[in-house]
Amino acid sequence: MHRTKVRIVEDALDANNTIARANRDDFDRHGVTVVNFMSAPGAGKTTLLERTIADLDGVRAGVLEGDVEGSMDADRLSALHVPVVQLNTASGFGGECHLDANMVRSALAALPLEEIDLLVIENVGNLVCPAEFRVGEDLRVMVSAVTEGEDKPLKYPLMFRACDLVIVNKIDLLPHLDISVERLLANVEAVHPGVPTMLVSARTGEGIDAWRDWLVNATNRAAAPA
Amino acid sequence: MHRTKVRIVEDALDANNTIARANRDDFDRHGVTVVNFMSAPGAGKTTLLERTIADLDGVRAGVLEGDVEGSMDADRLSALHVPVVQLNTASGFGGECHLDANMVRSALAALPLEEIDLLVIENVGNLVCPAEFRVGEDLRVMVSAVTEGEDKPLKYPLMFRACDLVIVNKIDLLPHLDISVERLLANVEAVHPGVPTMLVSARTGEGIDAWRDWLVNATNRAAAPA
Repeated sequence: MHRTKVRIVEDALDANNTIARANRDDFDRHGVTVVNFMSAPGAGKTTLLERTIADLDGVRAGVLEGDVEGSMDADRLSALHVPVVQLNTASGFGGECHLDANMVRSALAALPLEEIDLLVIENVGNLVCPAEFRVGEDLRVMVSAVTEGEDKPLKYPLMFRACDLVIVNKIDLLPHLDISVERLLANVEAVHPGVPTMLVSARTGEGIDAWRDWLVNATNRAAAPA
Repeated sequence: MHRTKVRIVEDALDANNTIARANRDDFDRHGVTVVNFMSAPGAGKTTLLERTIADLDGVRAGVLEGDVEGSMDADRLSALHVPVVQLNTASGFGGECHLDANMVRSALAALPLEEIDLLVIENVGNLVCPAEFRVGEDLRVMVSAVTEGEDKPLKYPLMFRACDLVIVNKIDLLPHLDISVERLLANVEAVHPGVPTMLVSARTGEGIDAWRDWLVNATNRAAAPA
C-alpha cells in the first residue's frame, strides 16, 4: 500500500517535470525569466510585488496569480497596469494546495509572453507542496515573515532548501515580537548553507530597493548572452 | 486524465473516512474528546497549547504533534508534563502537508488513551489540505493570526468552513498592522455564518481564559451522558 502510493507520487512528479520542461521551452522562446514565488499564507508576497512590479527599471513584468479561490490578489496587481492572469486551484477536491506545471501550462495562452521580460508566478500560500512541483521557472524565491517565528526553516526544510533567495519580511514588527532574527537567519543557513537572504518590510518600504534590484538583475542576467 | 484524478482522490478520501471511523471508535471506547487543531505555519497553535494544556480544571489532556520534520513543538509541550507523541510526515515525498486518519491511527498505540480525557491533534501548518482529511476528531479548531491579513477566509474558505471555532490570535500586534479585525471577522462570518470566534493573544495572555474554558467545556460536554 505504501509502496503503491510512493510509485503513484513518483509518476506524478515525472509527469510534472515533463510538462515543466515544455513550459520552460516556451518561456525560453520568448526570452522570459520566470520566478516561482512562494510562502506561507499571509507572508506578504502580493504586497512585495505591489511595491516593485510596476517600476523595474525597464524590465516589463507580468504576474500569474495562484490561489485556491478568488481573485483578490490579481485585482490588486492589475491596478498597477501590468499583465496579470488568475489561476484558481479550487476545481480539485476542496482546492489544490500548490501550483503544478500543468496548471501553469493551462494559463500560458492567456499570458502575453511576447510583451514581458519577467514572469512572477505567485504560488498558493503553503510551505510544503509548492516546493515539490517545478513549473518551468528559472528561479525560486520564498518569503518568510518574522511573525511566523524563527523555527520555520527547521520545520519546513524542503521549501527553504528549494529556494535561490529567502526574503525575511515584516521586520518592522520585530520590536513587538519575542523572536530573534539572528536565530531565524541561523536556521535558514543551517538547512540551506549559503542561500542569499534579504531583510525587508513591505509595509515601511525598508529593503524594498534591494528586492527590486534583485528582480531586475535576475532578469537581465538571464537575458544576457551566455 | 482529470476524471481519473478525481476518482483517485475520491477513493483516497473514502479510505481515509473508513480509518477515521476506526479512530473515532477507539477514542469513544476510552471516553476521549478529540480536537483537530489547524492553522497556517506560525499562527501560534503550540503557544496556545503551552498556555492552557497543563491547567485544564481537572481535564487530563494529551497532544499529538504533527510536523513535516523535527520535534521542536513536542519538546516544548512535553516540558509541561502532559503526554505528547510526535508524528512526522516527512517519510512521504518531501513530506505530506497534512495529517490523515492513517497517520493518526499509527500513533494511537503510543498514546495513553486510558489516562486522558482530551486529545489535541496539532496538524501540519497549512490552510488547505488539513481541512480535507478527517482523522476521527469530535471538533475542529483553527487559528488565524491577524498578521496573516484580513482576506484569508476568502482565499481559504474550506478551512474556515470546516471549523467549529475560529481563534483570532496575535491581537496584541493590531496597533502595528494595517488591518481591520472587524473586516477579518466579517470575512469569517461570510464564509461560515454563525461560527464562534475568539480574539486572543498567546503572547500577552489576553483571551486565553476563554480558550481554556472552551477546551474544558468541550471535553465535559462530550463526556456527559446524552
